[in-house]
Amino acid sequence: MVYMHGGDIYRNPAELDFSVNINPLGMPFQSVEAAKKGVLLSAAHYPDCYSEELCRALAGFHGVEARQVIPGNGAAELLFALCQFLRPQKGLVLAPSFQGYEEALKGAGAKIRAWELEEAGGFAVTENFIGSIRGEEGILFCCNPNNPTGNLTEKRILYQIAERCEETDTWFCLDECFLPFLGPDKEGKFTMIQDLKRFPHLIVLRAFTKIYAMPGLRLGYACSANSWITEGLRGVLQPWNISIPAQMAGIAALKDRKYLEKTFQMIAEEKKYLEESLLDGLVIKLYPSVANYLFFEAQIGLKEKLLEKGVLIRSCGDFRNLSEGYFRIAVKTHRENKALIYRWRESYGKTNYDTGDNV
Amino acid sequence: MVYMHGGDIYRNPAELDFSVNINPLGMPFQSVEAAKKGVLLSAAHYPDCYSEELCRALAGFHGVEARQVIPGNGAAELLFALCQFLRPQKGLVLAPSFQGYEEALKGAGAKIRAWELEEAGGFAVTENFIGSIRGEEGILFCCNPNNPTGNLTEKRILYQIAERCEETDTWFCLDECFLPFLGPDKEGKFTMIQDLKRFPHLIVLRAFTKIYAMPGLRLGYACSANSWITEGLRGVLQPWNISIPAQMAGIAALKDRKYLEKTFQMIAEEKKYLEESLLDGLVIKLYPSVANYLFFEAQIGLKEKLLEKGVLIRSCGDFRNLSEGYFRIAVKTHRENKALIYRWRESYGKTNYDTGDNV
Repeated sequence: MVYMHGGDIYRNPAELDFSVNINPLGMPFQSVEAAKKGVLLSAAHYPDCYSEELCRALAGFHGVEARQVIPGNGAAELLFALCQFLRPQKGLVLAPSFQGYEEALKGAGAKIRAWELEEAGGFAVTENFIGSIRGEEGILFCCNPNNPTGNLTEKRILYQIAERCEETDTWFCLDECFLPFLGPDKEGKFTMIQDLKRFPHLIVLRAFTKIYAMPGLRLGYACSANSWITEGLRGVLQPWNISIPAQMAGIAALKDRKYLEKTFQMIAEEKKYLEESLLDGLVIKLYPSVANYLFFEAQIGLKEKLLEKGVLIRSCGDFRNLSEGYFRIAVKTHRENKALIYRWRESYGKTNYDTGDNV
Repeated sequence: MVYMHGGDIYRNPAELDFSVNINPLGMPFQSVEAAKKGVLLSAAHYPDCYSEELCRALAGFHGVEARQVIPGNGAAELLFALCQFLRPQKGLVLAPSFQGYEEALKGAGAKIRAWELEEAGGFAVTENFIGSIRGEEGILFCCNPNNPTGNLTEKRILYQIAERCEETDTWFCLDECFLPFLGPDKEGKFTMIQDLKRFPHLIVLRAFTKIYAMPGLRLGYACSANSWITEGLRGVLQPWNISIPAQMAGIAALKDRKYLEKTFQMIAEEKKYLEESLLDGLVIKLYPSVANYLFFEAQIGLKEKLLEKGVLIRSCGDFRNLSEGYFRIAVKTHRENKALIYRWRESYGKTNYDTGDNV
């Protein structure tokens, strides 16, 4: 099976890319400057193989210890490293969810069991799932909020999952890459990063990719209070896995707290605009999303229709437990969102009530 | 065992770093410009997960097929990926040689057998070694020219090794990261990259790191005509393993043929200068090196003495089959090389015959 990915503009050239969920504000200015400076330093120096400054900055940011942080060449590298190190015979995933978990498991020769989330419940993770963790799989992957649905799992459920994982000796990899888009209050309430010591089987995954808009630089990290895991990950990773531009961009990004506030406000406003527009006759069903992307059911063939108009969206027909007709779009800038809606309406001959100026 | 690495300026701050073997010309200008442009593109786009343009460029450069090229986040990532994919019970290395092979093998849980190269023969790989490949190890790692010695293995011997590996079902990973420093004629004569089809167990490893001076960006590649190997490597690597700046810098570098000529000339001249200076009473024994670095025996404590003068060199006491008193230095610019020699002489009170101006 060949996995499809959002954001493959290299084989799907489009003017507007709504298929990747990247912060529409773009990389923080100081990160761009730092990365450019990093390019110059890259000509004579290897990256710090301990990423000391970056780990210290992340430790300070999250209130954890620097040795609990393992930086990766994007969070994806850490998924693969985790599977290579643990080499579980079988892994447990939710469906639908990010396909990278399955890819990483298969790369390590593991079989996969997928728990199908119920459409009727908006694909939410509920208590029904807990009993299904029986120690038959070496590792469980969860994404909160989930990708592609944008569904947020309650903290109460997360604790139950984590406890069940401890009881059944199951590693629990919790991907929180999209959590920062919920804003500092909600993020603080839903993150499990403060619970690492309580759950030795817990590994929290984070990325700069989405929230700081640096998908092309590659920077993510895993956090665990379990030194067997952190040492094990270091053992399967090359010493210089994070480029100098990525390390410097990351350190600079963490200093820019205003950027996060601005992001949260903008996403909230623009999501409202997109939701209202989508519900105005464009989609069959819109699922409530807490994240910086929207998930919906619409006419089959929508992706192709929009591609003709220069807009790339993510068709979710290739996700487990979904079928043709499910789609995901990122929340982008107002100008881009307006262009999307205008072109979408145009595709179906519905342009009369939006002038589409500035698009 | 914790491995030491050259170039750890983060914990060994020094004014002059002779501990890493990087092209002293610095990154090609067009690569710097491309990488900076890549930083800007990185804010909205993922890297091409197939690295199509880069693979095509490398295929054209080496006269191989694009599908035979697997790019890595530095050659080091590919070493680790190879060991993770093959998971040999045991690996065969030469001693002394680059320690990354052992690190990657251990990361995959493999045991190690080390073939000790003879000091009396200048640590050369000779026919004696061939019979020692008996299929008891799943993979053999060789480095040509060898690191840290700078010794070049004859093509005749390489063919014998490759044939023996085919006979004994042993994977043969040949690291040619330093071969381009020999200049186009010698490189063409000694590379095994044209022999991939003849030897299905052969994997040739290359890097942009050293020859194009981009250690901080991370870019290397493996070449193999064996689709089981290339597909297997892709399976254990995340899809977006090469950052956009690295891909763009690499593509730009391959276009700059003059840079390679200039490099070859400069290294030849400067190596001569350093060799003559070292032989003038500074070292106990200088080993002939074809590469962009020199390997020698000198007074124990030299590293510490030079560090006091702001110069970092690579002590090779931690290499297998070497002991305290062996060192490696890079060939750098004339200004830097002169400074090294001046400060070295100064350390031992031998400054009378060099004015050390401009240092």
